[in-house]
Amino acid sequence: MKELKVGIAQINPIVGNYEHNAAKIIRMIGEAAERGLDWVIFSELALPGYPVWDLAIRKRFVREGLKHLERIAAATRSKKTVAILGYIDEGPAGARKSYNALGVLSGGKLVHKQYKTLLPTYDVFLEHIFFIPAREQKIYRYKGLAAGMSICEDIWHEGYDLKPTQVLARKGARVIVNISASPYHGRVAEVRDDLIRKRARENGAYLIYVNQVGGQDDLIFDGRSLVAAPTGDILFRGELFREGLYEVSLDLGQKDFRRSARPKLPRRREGLGAADAGEMYQALVLGLGDYVRKNGFKKVVLGLSGGIDSALTAAIACDALGPGAVIGVAMPGEFSSETSLSDARELARNLGIEFRVRTITASYTSFLNEVMRFKQLEGKEPSEHSRISLAMENLQARLRGLSLMYISNDENVLLLSTGNKSEMAMGYCTLYGDMSGGLCVLGDVFKTDVYRLSAYRNSLGPVIPQATLDKAPTAELRPNQKDQDSLPPYEVLDRILYHYIEEELSGADIARKLAGKGIQPALVTDIINRVDHNEYKRRQAAPILRVTRKAWFGRRMPITNHFRS
Amino acid sequence: MKELKVGIAQINPIVGNYEHNAAKIIRMIGEAAERGLDWVIFSELALPGYPVWDLAIRKRFVREGLKHLERIAAATRSKKTVAILGYIDEGPAGARKSYNALGVLSGGKLVHKQYKTLLPTYDVFLEHIFFIPAREQKIYRYKGLAAGMSICEDIWHEGYDLKPTQVLARKGARVIVNISASPYHGRVAEVRDDLIRKRARENGAYLIYVNQVGGQDDLIFDGRSLVAAPTGDILFRGELFREGLYEVSLDLGQKDFRRSARPKLPRRREGLGAADAGEMYQALVLGLGDYVRKNGFKKVVLGLSGGIDSALTAAIACDALGPGAVIGVAMPGEFSSETSLSDARELARNLGIEFRVRTITASYTSFLNEVMRFKQLEGKEPSEHSRISLAMENLQARLRGLSLMYISNDENVLLLSTGNKSEMAMGYCTLYGDMSGGLCVLGDVFKTDVYRLSAYRNSLGPVIPQATLDKAPTAELRPNQKDQDSLPPYEVLDRILYHYIEEELSGADIARKLAGKGIQPALVTDIINRVDHNEYKRRQAAPILRVTRKAWFGRRMPITNHFRS
Repeated sequence: MKELKVGIAQINPIVGNYEHNAAKIIRMIGEAAERGLDWVIFSELALPGYPVWDLAIRKRFVREGLKHLERIAAATRSKKTVAILGYIDEGPAGARKSYNALGVLSGGKLVHKQYKTLLPTYDVFLEHIFFIPAREQKIYRYKGLAAGMSICEDIWHEGYDLKPTQVLARKGARVIVNISASPYHGRVAEVRDDLIRKRARENGAYLIYVNQVGGQDDLIFDGRSLVAAPTGDILFRGELFREGLYEVSLDLGQKDFRRSARPKLPRRREGLGAADAGEMYQALVLGLGDYVRKNGFKKVVLGLSGGIDSALTAAIACDALGPGAVIGVAMPGEFSSETSLSDARELARNLGIEFRVRTITASYTSFLNEVMRFKQLEGKEPSEHSRISLAMENLQARLRGLSLMYISNDENVLLLSTGNKSEMAMGYCTLYGDMSGGLCVLGDVFKTDVYRLSAYRNSLGPVIPQATLDKAPTAELRPNQKDQDSLPPYEVLDRILYHYIEEELSGADIARKLAGKGIQPALVTDIINRVDHNEYKRRQAAPILRVTRKAWFGRRMPITNHFRS
Repeated sequence: MKELKVGIAQINPIVGNYEHNAAKIIRMIGEAAERGLDWVIFSELALPGYPVWDLAIRKRFVREGLKHLERIAAATRSKKTVAILGYIDEGPAGARKSYNALGVLSGGKLVHKQYKTLLPTYDVFLEHIFFIPAREQKIYRYKGLAAGMSICEDIWHEGYDLKPTQVLARKGARVIVNISASPYHGRVAEVRDDLIRKRARENGAYLIYVNQVGGQDDLIFDGRSLVAAPTGDILFRGELFREGLYEVSLDLGQKDFRRSARPKLPRRREGLGAADAGEMYQALVLGLGDYVRKNGFKKVVLGLSGGIDSALTAAIACDALGPGAVIGVAMPGEFSSETSLSDARELARNLGIEFRVRTITASYTSFLNEVMRFKQLEGKEPSEHSRISLAMENLQARLRGLSLMYISNDENVLLLSTGNKSEMAMGYCTLYGDMSGGLCVLGDVFKTDVYRLSAYRNSLGPVIPQATLDKAPTAELRPNQKDQDSLPPYEVLDRILYHYIEEELSGADIARKLAGKGIQPALVTDIINRVDHNEYKRRQAAPILRVTRKAWFGRRMPITNHFRS
């Protein structure tokens, strides 16, 4: 063989929808065959979608998948194109767990299979619970070409004793396929690029990396499939956040590879704010859109406070679903400023979305009067409402949640919650209030990144009002309240949170790191203790789209926890 | 050595509270020394408490623990008693993970250590994420006696290639210690009893099993430590749900063991309702009490509907915290019957708890009027409120949640939610309504078990009114509504749910199993699809005390999931 024509099928499967996924796969096999490709390669668990969690250990789910695999195999019968894809195979007789499998389909049959060897069990991955690891790596021979097959973590072998790709290379593999379902986070492209280059180079083999695309609950898969030459040069980069069938030709006769077929990705600086704002924005658009569409909703609703979080969430929703699918609701209360309402209205006008105003003032007042009346009936001291207590602040947030959930139930539209990562960290949010909703769009986006994403969105066409960008953040639950009354400036807060959550540094280490910046150790300690203390709120949060290396979803902390840093 | 005097220290540690746990451990070592015991044995991770999740991979947390371990070691300095306990040890240099360790402290020093070999990663356990497995099993020698040390899963070796206790027995261990943190579920006592007997017998060694006691978020540890002779006879059973320092003498000179030093546990029938109602009730008392106390609350509040779920929850709260620490709130609405209020009042009187009445009728009516007014302002058709929509049903539940959360915030008392497992399964509960609260007490108790537990509680002294026990379950959110209007009878529902959730059977298998009982396959399919569909509600639930083999906490299902059984 002199040349191998490879089709990279970067698809967005729907978890558990075998019909839909199989039809898409069969259609792409047909297209690949028409284009005369030798192979067409799909991502990890392309057939059931990824991740399926406990579904992977349901026999009925696995068997149903195997029936569809047969259908797909049949679709290769009279074609010269070989299809390579991920599916779930049954474990050995009596076993509870299954195999995360790769199948090679050719001439109507499953001609080769390779199970996943390294099962990631950390952060957002829990594969040890569901799958049995492969015990061997076998070579697939195609017209004299020795190829090695691997699945996702199998190429991320640092920290494991076994290195599956090395085994395959030693057995003569000149092409190594890796089917993946690797989720997006801010700096993943660069990390993946480096790894793929390295694996190709050290194994002296072509490396074909095919990644899933699409949103699945908290996770967003970014696609961006890659092909590297044995030199480590990147020959091909798939699109970001989009499905596609891409064609790449591997020159198997070539001995001397010219370097730099494609340039390296530019280095990004590390740390908070290092992620590309445009990429993160598009990730959220995909994550939100897929959650809504895959769960059968036609519309979303959200509260518009006039602040930046809800403005950005609304913009993302519009870009994902179109303005006709978004309802914005302003719910002014006793402590809302006039400009809050006008800013919300301007945003809605800019976005072209439906805008409603539902004040909470009347219900707030009548609830408090009721409480006073009840207390009198119970013979208790009627409490003074001149001081705004925490209960009264939360009450306002919950009355807004009540209104929004009424609309959600009444009109069957999905409520989006709008809190950001900094607030979720500090518990600066109200359970059953602003935390209400089926999906939390910005819960993994630091407040400082909310500003960056907003600036990015406005650079495409200004939709978020300047006043919203300029004003000091406020929850408006007390007179003249500002976030900065009870939180440090967001630049400081986010830096501490970043070191604590994403870098997992201790309070002492963070204090040392920031000592030169005039940040007191006591502030650091206070902040990280507040993060830990508010675990109980996050436990009841909606799914939160993951865009950082360490999201709440992959973090596991006890609620009952007396440890203070 | 002829005789080994062993102290079984069954303690209730607080996660992350090193001061508290170390003080308790040191006190018990002192007591054991005074009693002249050779060994005193504490449970798995007795020092940090179990489970600590991500805390296990925080260097600062681990190092802090090691300092306390030194303090504890120092406490053994001038004593003849050896202390054996669980702690977290640092992983090798550069490693992210730690060791789940057992230390033997004697004469002021750590004289022996054994890491955990088998790391459970399934259901409620995720140890692979945090710990590195031991690579060897070493013998601890004590005055000529060869002893083997092991940690929890190490004796549950079925399904693992490596059997740590066999290695220890081959190396000559005559006594095998197993320190555990094994949570309660309905039939765990019998399963554990069988296993301990078997391990002792097959290894021809004494087996000393020391288990943690106490509640930690969703999990309840039941204690019930065990000692088995080499014959497999149980020599000792520790108390249930209670701390204690127990003394057991092992006769090391004995060759022929008389059988049946203690009788076997009676066999219980399998299946739904097999768990002992008294045990499950006491488990919930411990779980609720520890959650409240360990999180620093003094009081709890809950809604009393006059129904059985809230009545049972209130009874459990009283038994855990005393009647002075419980506030019951009746919140009658438009569709509440007269008897609902009187039944709630009678319950509160029987329990001796504070009782408040806060009707929701006024706020319900005014909210709906507001909605009508808003709709008119928006130029929309004013909706008819004569038909009670889902939105209106949920509104009532949410207005109750609002009232309860106001009390919770205003008086700093913990709100308990009262939904049961059957409701949580079917989504027969309202997000931000009756699902509001910091702890869900009955969310893992099937409705039919709610009746069994209530009967048990009343057998100790009647507190739940007969009318509450007798009436047909109803949410009272529509006129003349009964649960059975939209759900099958609970006996049928719970049987299907049990097979589906706990036994993980497929719809087809369940239908086959129940065919003889006149249950239609379509009903089975409908129910299990509703369970899957309602994953989004459970995702936002409060921690739910686990009392069955398969609780929501150990179940992992995607929300976005098109698979229908």
